Amino acid sequence: MEFDLEQGIAVLQRTPHVLRAMLATLAPAWTDATEGPETWSPYVIVGHLIHGERTDWIPRAQIILVQGASRRFTPYDRFAQFREGRGKSLVELLDEFAGLRADNLATLARWRLTGAQLALEGQHPEFGAVTLRQLLATWVAHDLGHVAQAARVMAKQYREAVGPWRAYLPILDR
Amino acid sequence: MEFDLEQGIAVLQRTPHVLRAMLATLAPAWTDATEGPETWSPYVIVGHLIHGERTDWIPRAQIILVQGASRRFTPYDRFAQFREGRGKSLVELLDEFAGLRADNLATLARWRLTGAQLALEGQHPEFGAVTLRQLLATWVAHDLGHVAQAARVMAKQYREAVGPWRAYLPILDR
Repeated sequence: MEFDLEQGIAVLQRTPHVLRAMLATLAPAWTDATEGPETWSPYVIVGHLIHGERTDWIPRAQIILVQGASRRFTPYDRFAQFREGRGKSLVELLDEFAGLRADNLATLARWRLTGAQLALEGQHPEFGAVTLRQLLATWVAHDLGHVAQAARVMAKQYREAVGPWRAYLPILDR
Repeated sequence: MEFDLEQGIAVLQRTPHVLRAMLATLAPAWTDATEGPETWSPYVIVGHLIHGERTDWIPRAQIILVQGASRRFTPYDRFAQFREGRGKSLVELLDEFAGLRADNLATLARWRLTGAQLALEGQHPEFGAVTLRQLLATWVAHDLGHVAQAARVMAKQYREAVGPWRAYLPILDR
């Protein structure tokens, strides 16, 4: 499927609502659960999405759109959520994510991007040239990947509790 | 994590809201998308969950609780959703799922299950003896598995569109 701005935005708008429906006011036994050492809980995932709203998607899109002398992205810190947001409740993080996402989608709408702009390039620190279209498609797929991850992390907490049904639930061993 | 009835119900209650937030009024390009031949779209997943509400979880729990002469479950039809529900819109299916789930959770609450009841057994057609506790844990993990699946199916639609970022998005190749 080709990236389509309107269809991509439709997913980006929904993610804060999906995570709120899934996680708000749920017991820490679920929201602090992980898949093992060095893996992320649903709480950490929401913190990671917040950091992306602040430093990744729209700031990188701006670098591309300006087409200045340096189009190189600032490397993205995939672990910032372990420093930032500490001590905040999950509901506070969900609210913060929803607010930042709404602001960023308002910025995106204001730009009224054309096909020509979506084809503009920036420099990814590892990949080299990437287009604005690829960046925005990645924003969408990244959201969906983390929604799937949050559901998977929670499912795995019942890996033993399901008994023999584990054989029918591939999610438990992914 | 041990199965806990209250914590399990907290997840079961949320699933209809999660799927509605994710899928309602989204374009068919997303909701009819699959991972390839013989794989399920988000639309089909919701139909499958509806069939489970009608024929699987609570009916099997009832077989266990009655402790009659035959405690053997009726085999579950994992493909019923391709016959039932055809022609219904996704929003109709989401409403139907939410209604059935609410009814089933009301039944579960009415039972006021004890630890002794959770340890009662039924006969799974393939696995043999399974407990009510395992059945209810499976209901929860099954929900979460299909939420993760719906997000993954959608993410994969942008497998090519993300360009080189595919290397950072393991969800796209799962």
